[in-house]
Amino acid sequence: MNANKVTSLFGIKYPIIQGGMIWCSGWRLASAVSNAGGLGLIGSGSMRPELLEEHIIKCKAATNLPFGVNVPLIYPQTDELIEIILRHQVKIVFTSAGNPEKYTSLLKAHGIIVAHVVANSKFALKAEAVGVDAIVAEGFEAGGHNGIEETTTMVLIPQLRPLLKKPLIAAGGISSGAAMYASMALGAEGVQIGSLFASCVESSSHWHFKQAIFDAGDGATRLLMKKLIPVRLLKNAFFDQVVQAEGQGATVEELKTLLGKGRAKAGIFAGDIEHGELEIGQVCALIHNEHSAAELIENLMNEFYKTANKMSNEWLL
Amino acid sequence: MNANKVTSLFGIKYPIIQGGMIWCSGWRLASAVSNAGGLGLIGSGSMRPELLEEHIIKCKAATNLPFGVNVPLIYPQTDELIEIILRHQVKIVFTSAGNPEKYTSLLKAHGIIVAHVVANSKFALKAEAVGVDAIVAEGFEAGGHNGIEETTTMVLIPQLRPLLKKPLIAAGGISSGAAMYASMALGAEGVQIGSLFASCVESSSHWHFKQAIFDAGDGATRLLMKKLIPVRLLKNAFFDQVVQAEGQGATVEELKTLLGKGRAKAGIFAGDIEHGELEIGQVCALIHNEHSAAELIENLMNEFYKTANKMSNEWLL
Repeated sequence: MNANKVTSLFGIKYPIIQGGMIWCSGWRLASAVSNAGGLGLIGSGSMRPELLEEHIIKCKAATNLPFGVNVPLIYPQTDELIEIILRHQVKIVFTSAGNPEKYTSLLKAHGIIVAHVVANSKFALKAEAVGVDAIVAEGFEAGGHNGIEETTTMVLIPQLRPLLKKPLIAAGGISSGAAMYASMALGAEGVQIGSLFASCVESSSHWHFKQAIFDAGDGATRLLMKKLIPVRLLKNAFFDQVVQAEGQGATVEELKTLLGKGRAKAGIFAGDIEHGELEIGQVCALIHNEHSAAELIENLMNEFYKTANKMSNEWLL
Repeated sequence: MNANKVTSLFGIKYPIIQGGMIWCSGWRLASAVSNAGGLGLIGSGSMRPELLEEHIIKCKAATNLPFGVNVPLIYPQTDELIEIILRHQVKIVFTSAGNPEKYTSLLKAHGIIVAHVVANSKFALKAEAVGVDAIVAEGFEAGGHNGIEETTTMVLIPQLRPLLKKPLIAAGGISSGAAMYASMALGAEGVQIGSLFASCVESSSHWHFKQAIFDAGDGATRLLMKKLIPVRLLKNAFFDQVVQAEGQGATVEELKTLLGKGRAKAGIFAGDIEHGELEIGQVCALIHNEHSAAELIENLMNEFYKTANKMSNEWLL
């Protein structure tokens, strides 16, 4: 693989970032991705500080290659998570779902490489202004929490590329080497991939959840809870309840009550496929089998180069 | 330009189809696109049969190159529109928004090349089964009426490509040569472009509408009216009314009443920017200036080849 801005920044072989997903990406997944040449991220969004500490220690034992931690900035325990990250000298942090201003300078002061996830141009410019090293732009098709603008990857990447100087990483709708190549053609220098890794061997998600991903067809997800925080969910009994409530004009309070506590854990980690909150991207329709992270990365890169050759053969004058 | 399945099928120079849009694409736009090497489509969705006849006659006078007519299959006057198309021996028809079964065999029996617009795999397979010559797959980011699955172009094209034998044309989110190249990398053999042509010199839309497109930033559109027929609209006073009504659980009947009659004409053709129904795609955020159709196609192809060269230089091993 030729080096580019993203591989150089993180010191990785391939410009493939594994999204830091709640209940899926612990040390097993992160170290497997890093060992295969991508950048593995521990998803701290579902972890208490002491659990994150355990995962960082185990990840370091499992790989000598760069890995990082994803920190959603919306939880009250963020300060404690950041403190663990600093204490254990994690070298790469991806922040998401919040304002990058508060933590970027702290992390940078400790020599940490910082990337921030955005879904619109306003926050992309803000992230760059506060000094992040890379921007992840996540399109509407991505799983889990999402932006209110609903801008898709196909539109978001060309929109942000001319506004930014820092490396741009595309996320949302990418589960193949062809989609990775398309994202780079749109202006990204790397990709962040979630759903595909959420369903792989090393993901800590329940096999019921993985099976639901393999079984999903087109139109199997929808962005819901827009009055709260928009979140892309797989259809199930809980999904139907939300659709019905929203169709009848449910208020923020009613949606909070309906959501309750611990639904994502119940669905993704404990395998309650009917009543859990199943966060997954639209690309679940394209994922049919379980592979190891190493196989997925090998397949992605093989298909990436196949696409590069095909396109060059067809279109180079 | 190298020939491919789409250019060969329609007898055109570039695999660029101009979407047949209500109140925008009459004979002026369609003939300008065809004369510039793309495939121009007259949008019959906003036309009475006698007006369509006039546009077909004028389009034939304005170009010797192939052009077509887009026919949404949801209006009561479809039979009369098809009759005009047959009488004037139009050679290419794009059908949309309905079941392709009824008209495809009739059109094919008259030697007409037929393409059908879909937003999911079920209708793509159905269109191929009833004998269409090409499939247009339109993603969530597209303007105007849209599918209920909300699948984006980045996901829809790779999903449909392995299922279909016929040429596949990507639509939704494409306003640049880079996005065109990305669409081909995803598996399409051509692109259908709407918003960009809706705002060009030869579009019959009102200059207020064009100006609103140039002024739009990210997040300026949203898919609304999902209980009726989903439609992507630009934000204005009418948009706000719909959002408010839907947030309160408005019924189908209430939405019909709110929509009323003639709002798309009022907004797009007559220039009532506040109270009209402004159908446009997410890519309006990327469109800033008015160009002629010929300039747009030249720019698209220049950027397409620039992207092809850049990607090959960076990634070919």
